[in-house]
Amino acid sequence: MIQKLISNIQKTNAPVVVGLDPMMGFIPDQIKSRAFAEFGETLEGAAEAVWQYNKAIVDEIYDLIPAVKPQIAMYEQFGLPGLQAFKKTVDYCKEKNLVVIGDVKRGDIGSTSAAYAVAHLGKVQVGSQLLTPFGEDFATVNPYLGSDGIRPFLEVCKEEKKGIFILVKTSNPSSGEFQDRLIDGKPLYEHVGEKVAEWAGECMGDSYSYVGAVVGATYPEMGKVLRKVMPKSFILVPGYGAQGGKAADLVHYFNEDGLGAIVNSSRGIIAAWKQEKYAAYGAENFAGASRAAVIDMVTDINQALNH
Amino acid sequence: MIQKLISNIQKTNAPVVVGLDPMMGFIPDQIKSRAFAEFGETLEGAAEAVWQYNKAIVDEIYDLIPAVKPQIAMYEQFGLPGLQAFKKTVDYCKEKNLVVIGDVKRGDIGSTSAAYAVAHLGKVQVGSQLLTPFGEDFATVNPYLGSDGIRPFLEVCKEEKKGIFILVKTSNPSSGEFQDRLIDGKPLYEHVGEKVAEWAGECMGDSYSYVGAVVGATYPEMGKVLRKVMPKSFILVPGYGAQGGKAADLVHYFNEDGLGAIVNSSRGIIAAWKQEKYAAYGAENFAGASRAAVIDMVTDINQALNH
Repeated sequence: MIQKLISNIQKTNAPVVVGLDPMMGFIPDQIKSRAFAEFGETLEGAAEAVWQYNKAIVDEIYDLIPAVKPQIAMYEQFGLPGLQAFKKTVDYCKEKNLVVIGDVKRGDIGSTSAAYAVAHLGKVQVGSQLLTPFGEDFATVNPYLGSDGIRPFLEVCKEEKKGIFILVKTSNPSSGEFQDRLIDGKPLYEHVGEKVAEWAGECMGDSYSYVGAVVGATYPEMGKVLRKVMPKSFILVPGYGAQGGKAADLVHYFNEDGLGAIVNSSRGIIAAWKQEKYAAYGAENFAGASRAAVIDMVTDINQALNH
Repeated sequence: MIQKLISNIQKTNAPVVVGLDPMMGFIPDQIKSRAFAEFGETLEGAAEAVWQYNKAIVDEIYDLIPAVKPQIAMYEQFGLPGLQAFKKTVDYCKEKNLVVIGDVKRGDIGSTSAAYAVAHLGKVQVGSQLLTPFGEDFATVNPYLGSDGIRPFLEVCKEEKKGIFILVKTSNPSSGEFQDRLIDGKPLYEHVGEKVAEWAGECMGDSYSYVGAVVGATYPEMGKVLRKVMPKSFILVPGYGAQGGKAADLVHYFNEDGLGAIVNSSRGIIAAWKQEKYAAYGAENFAGASRAAVIDMVTDINQALNH
């Protein structure tokens, strides 16, 4: 799947991923009204609104981008109907040939981590059948529990040719509370990065590993260091745009081959219609605003990379 | 909800929690056959088997225990039908007056963490309605992302009078890879424990905080230290039994009031019928074996505590 991610990036010339993190406040009223008229103000109604909103945006932008990253929390908050909208979104994006990164940040140990790996990347055995629970292409994984939490994911990745992005340095203001603490003279995130490099070495595709890392756009100096620590890992970069990360800061997240990073934007794209810059599109053409925002983002990042 | 946990522990005189972590290999053939006959070898069939298995065990043991801890990964692996079985299990256990600890190990930042908190402990706004997505009483939370990941949970806990258990020192063999690394002369888990104590201070019930911690039974010396670092937090203790933790080791996880810890056993209880010790119950009476295993566990722990 890392090969497909690379090929999709090269085809679109867009090292970006769009975060499908629908919040009710982002969804235009006409979509909510239709959904509530059909299903009431219920979890089913919310899930229908989320799904229609996602579908309209994906239909408008899928040709421009290599990948999407649905954030499962935004669906889980609507319970079972919400998770059904998650699954529909995953399936629909795969039909559109997009790589789907499930932003699930799961992590546990042993058989429990194996169950998460199977849930999101693998197949589960039921009697004589092998069935696909959610079927994303990549998943994000939390490293706090150590190798016992990661290894079951590596096994599933090898078998299914899928991949993971391990949280190394997250984009949020308080990420340093634990991640930046010095251990033997090096911050924790660098120790985690070294383990990622080790795991990545065991799971190589042609030029990059199935095992990537999450490093926030908001910490560019750390990104520069981590790029070197994990040379074979793709870096998934949250924090561009809404959280304050700038394209010029991201240059060092990439390798010299122009690959190795994929920059995420979520609300900057899916809620573009609410920004002054794209206000002319209006609520009715919210997906058109998203398309314009994708084009602007790709231009912004490519300009920085070619500078 | 911390008050209800304490009152349930006192009523049952059992500082234990049963992990409802159903794996297909634990479920007796007669349950699987019936479920597959009705729904086929499908995710629905697996979910039905899981639910019938859980229900039979809960019916047999609910009067003996204060709480259950369903591990959501074991349900997530069966996709949407699996998560429906999770929800049914949560609801059923609440009907039986059990405290339900959702072992979900979620953790993200800002609005995303808020969405997880709402999903598992809170209510979500849909139009004019406030709806309950999964509705557990407690949830386990991963601290790697720092305060930004925890605060949204604290907000929901305060509003709903619910609680969380934050991963501090996990029970698995490789938990030390990151958690034990020394920072300013103290292991990372102790720094996390200190933050837990800080957060706990903000969320006090009558005598204990809504904010607890996870500390594995397999590291008793660390448990002893962490008990003192987090005096107002309940410690959720995995790793007893199957993972090697012994009752005598657990004494120091409790405070002098006899409270402050709740010891989990999962497969040791729910798959008791597969142990030689309880083999006489047979597959047909698997729930009876679970009941005997609960009684043995409670006796074992209380003997150690009263020693």
